[in-house]
Amino acid sequence: MSDIAIARAASPQPIQRIASELGLPEEAIEPYGRLKAKISSRFIESLPPQPESKLILVTAISPTPAGEGKTTTTVGLGDGLRRIGKKTAICLREPSLGPCFGMKGGAAGGGHAQVIPMEDINLHFTGDFHAITSAHNLLAAMVDNHVHWGNELQIDPRRIVWRRVLDMNDRSLRQITTGLGGPSNGFVNETGFDITVASEVMAILCLAENLTDLETRLGNIIVGYRVDKTPVYCRDLKAHGAMAALLKDAVQPNLVQTLEHTPALIHGGPFANIAHGCNSVIATKTAMKLADYVVTEAGFGADLGAEKFFNIKCRSAGLIPNAAVVVATVRALKMHGGVAKSELNEPNLTALEAGCANLTRHIRNMRRFGIPVIVAINEFAGDDPEEYKVISRAAETNGARSIRCTHWADGSAGTEHLARAVVDLIDNEATEGFAPLYDGSFPLLEKLTLVAQEIYGAKDVRLSGPARTQLKAILEMGYEDLPVCVAKTPYSFSTDPKALGAPSGHTLDVRELRLAAGAGFVVALAGTIMTMPGLPRRPAAERISINEMGEIDGLS
Amino acid sequence: MSDIAIARAASPQPIQRIASELGLPEEAIEPYGRLKAKISSRFIESLPPQPESKLILVTAISPTPAGEGKTTTTVGLGDGLRRIGKKTAICLREPSLGPCFGMKGGAAGGGHAQVIPMEDINLHFTGDFHAITSAHNLLAAMVDNHVHWGNELQIDPRRIVWRRVLDMNDRSLRQITTGLGGPSNGFVNETGFDITVASEVMAILCLAENLTDLETRLGNIIVGYRVDKTPVYCRDLKAHGAMAALLKDAVQPNLVQTLEHTPALIHGGPFANIAHGCNSVIATKTAMKLADYVVTEAGFGADLGAEKFFNIKCRSAGLIPNAAVVVATVRALKMHGGVAKSELNEPNLTALEAGCANLTRHIRNMRRFGIPVIVAINEFAGDDPEEYKVISRAAETNGARSIRCTHWADGSAGTEHLARAVVDLIDNEATEGFAPLYDGSFPLLEKLTLVAQEIYGAKDVRLSGPARTQLKAILEMGYEDLPVCVAKTPYSFSTDPKALGAPSGHTLDVRELRLAAGAGFVVALAGTIMTMPGLPRRPAAERISINEMGEIDGLS
Repeated sequence: MSDIAIARAASPQPIQRIASELGLPEEAIEPYGRLKAKISSRFIESLPPQPESKLILVTAISPTPAGEGKTTTTVGLGDGLRRIGKKTAICLREPSLGPCFGMKGGAAGGGHAQVIPMEDINLHFTGDFHAITSAHNLLAAMVDNHVHWGNELQIDPRRIVWRRVLDMNDRSLRQITTGLGGPSNGFVNETGFDITVASEVMAILCLAENLTDLETRLGNIIVGYRVDKTPVYCRDLKAHGAMAALLKDAVQPNLVQTLEHTPALIHGGPFANIAHGCNSVIATKTAMKLADYVVTEAGFGADLGAEKFFNIKCRSAGLIPNAAVVVATVRALKMHGGVAKSELNEPNLTALEAGCANLTRHIRNMRRFGIPVIVAINEFAGDDPEEYKVISRAAETNGARSIRCTHWADGSAGTEHLARAVVDLIDNEATEGFAPLYDGSFPLLEKLTLVAQEIYGAKDVRLSGPARTQLKAILEMGYEDLPVCVAKTPYSFSTDPKALGAPSGHTLDVRELRLAAGAGFVVALAGTIMTMPGLPRRPAAERISINEMGEIDGLS
Repeated sequence: MSDIAIARAASPQPIQRIASELGLPEEAIEPYGRLKAKISSRFIESLPPQPESKLILVTAISPTPAGEGKTTTTVGLGDGLRRIGKKTAICLREPSLGPCFGMKGGAAGGGHAQVIPMEDINLHFTGDFHAITSAHNLLAAMVDNHVHWGNELQIDPRRIVWRRVLDMNDRSLRQITTGLGGPSNGFVNETGFDITVASEVMAILCLAENLTDLETRLGNIIVGYRVDKTPVYCRDLKAHGAMAALLKDAVQPNLVQTLEHTPALIHGGPFANIAHGCNSVIATKTAMKLADYVVTEAGFGADLGAEKFFNIKCRSAGLIPNAAVVVATVRALKMHGGVAKSELNEPNLTALEAGCANLTRHIRNMRRFGIPVIVAINEFAGDDPEEYKVISRAAETNGARSIRCTHWADGSAGTEHLARAVVDLIDNEATEGFAPLYDGSFPLLEKLTLVAQEIYGAKDVRLSGPARTQLKAILEMGYEDLPVCVAKTPYSFSTDPKALGAPSGHTLDVRELRLAAGAGFVVALAGTIMTMPGLPRRPAAERISINEMGEIDGLS
């Protein structure tokens, strides 16, 4: 049965019922149709914190074309915890609309570990990303408009850094010239569009504590520089109030359910390379006020996703994670051990053993943050039981239990063991307690070096000439205290996407440092990062249509 | 009291209650928050037509800076009809987001004749315009992507006519160059963005009968031409299915309420110049299945708005309007009689009498369509009662009653007389019955000439050289049967915006004919029509913010 067939066969409960399981009264939610709701900010703010609530991060080995199943495991673990009687909520990122029409279909889990309504979540959902697109582009229009009407703030038109965004895969918009056609169309400028998930407004929405904090952070966005290189802020243009007004509903977290009716908060979805790749702080904190166990995930493998979750999100929001679950599959670890994708169906214990180096590096990395780790082996049909033993041994040697899961095929029945093991881990494993990898007060370059050496196994960091100039400017503007956000390939610990397994001794080459003053981090770009995807030769859009039942076909 | 203060002081009813007044059961609506809902297409389709339902068009004299109050009168008349015990629904267009941040604030009526929730309606509402933006831009991305991957359909890149859209006032995007930066970014192209309300997808959504018809019309969009000038359609790119999927919720009409709890369907909002300027056919037909009296409006004055409502919307949808209400004000008619805006506070019966030529031309025009007409005099503080008499005489001489209204100050108490008069008019005035101005089978140029001569009082139509070539191409492609949609200044019956009153004997100069094959009309552009507005020196956005109560200030 396909994902979509399973999703359609589900019997979802009215969203009010899901809300009431979390103790949310009728007036605390705003329904969007029958199966989606926004949780009222005002109600959330009225609730006391619940310090006993446990936060579990689901992360993964370095991704490969074989697939790992991080989102399905997040959903499966949530369902498993609820199955064993725990009051649970799941926190996920909202998928981006653009890519649904490109290579893949949707992104809402799979098999018997999905969040629903799948079509809505993958398309417009509750409109959050559209609101972000509007707010972002309003600022862009106001920047150009300011220059057009006399440029009182003396923005250097050559140094405008605020581009535009669309939630669409559209390569033609990557680099464009605007303002053609004469004086009434403004000044000519070189600029471009990024996909909405790459917007700094997205990162801001996901790190903001509330609407007021959001407005302040929006005001702190740097839109460009003057000839003397002093920054011009969004607040100088008085754009932040209107942007916050556009985001008034978007800051409220969305509530949906899994196939098994576990409450799921799906809210925000920043890029995991040039941003921090986690769902919103507001959603996570809301979930922790409402549930005893909160399961969440972060983008890419643990070197990028978990590192940013800990060093950026948890630091900024004062969150204390209680455990990390590292998802691994036999097939992916075999690829890390050098097996080609076409040969993954053959057992290969030697390659698997070699590939486990990737897993064990991630396990050790997680423990550096002072939290207990467990490995979830996401079973695929065709795996050899002997192969599971190899992974278990590798995990145990590094101080982590491993649990086999079959949530894709079995739903929560396939994650009950994992759920019990996670609860046991949190209750019984003594750890030194969570701490980010570095102090905010460390010099920026030292923070970057710490991440490179401790997490990636690199020997050093090398800044390009432009990056050194950018570092100097960032320090002069007084942003030394910000955390770093590394944008590098997710496929390897190094910057070479082909270096699988656990490479070490490499150099992290940083070609550009980019200040996200509103979001509150400094992006270090190592390698070329695409911020506007293109469509493939045969876009998924060609196969999407409405069937006679009024349902959307082809979106999965 | 300001509009927003009045709106905030209102006690709105839960949207379920408004729905139930229309006989809509709980399962027929999808709530979006507490005060908005979408009405289920499936439920609507299950209802039988209600042939006795009356459709009333509110239109106006040619607009002037003095203001007429067409939307407030539409709301006021709806409230008035409900006050005298009629089962009533109002149908309005959705306002565009972009202009809210430019000159004006919102557009949801005013005074005691408003629709609520005002902030939501003016901003994202239920996301319809965002869905249209996405669908439109998906097609643009697919066109460029097709060319990038080998151009199997042999689209001439110089003849791509499908631009992009954003719901934003952004002059810099009017004319742009895309695809810069090398081969991986596609081919270089000259193009631009229009505002979303100018999208053909918007016009299509507003003329479609249902989702299936929508998908067919989307498929009929012409995106460009080959070197041999044969058209390439959206369906050739297989984009229409995915676009329809994106519009699946957007085709369902939105239900809100007036300050007095009259049900209001607000759905769609195409430009009134390059498109037909009315709310969706689906909303109007839905309202007519649910209510006995349906009050709707059309963009600009009656020469543009009502003409297109009759010749394009009613023809296409098989709607039979029962009456037209022409809104006039003393101040605006004085401007039509030559009084400057600064001197409108002085009574001036002579100028008023001269200006009434504008009103009487519109009255006669409405009668040409075979439906009874009534004039609504929208009172302003400072009007002289003698002035009302001048208007009444002018109306009566042309066979129309006139009724004074004070809905802005008094709500439905100020339109009770108008409501009774409209009911009486529909029940008792014998007319020849509604008929569009021309047959679809008439030659295109003859249709255009009929509108110019019969409605605008022009002596003839002159096509520019390019327009003649375009006419030839349109005929060769077999689109002779389409109605015409004239894009000209709304301020005058002529193409000279300064020629107020009732000019005649002029020439309608058409510089371009543009085929909207999906929407199903041929746009005749007379004069320069701006399809992407800019922001003013001090955009309204600068004054918009969130106050301590979490409400949006500055949006009105």
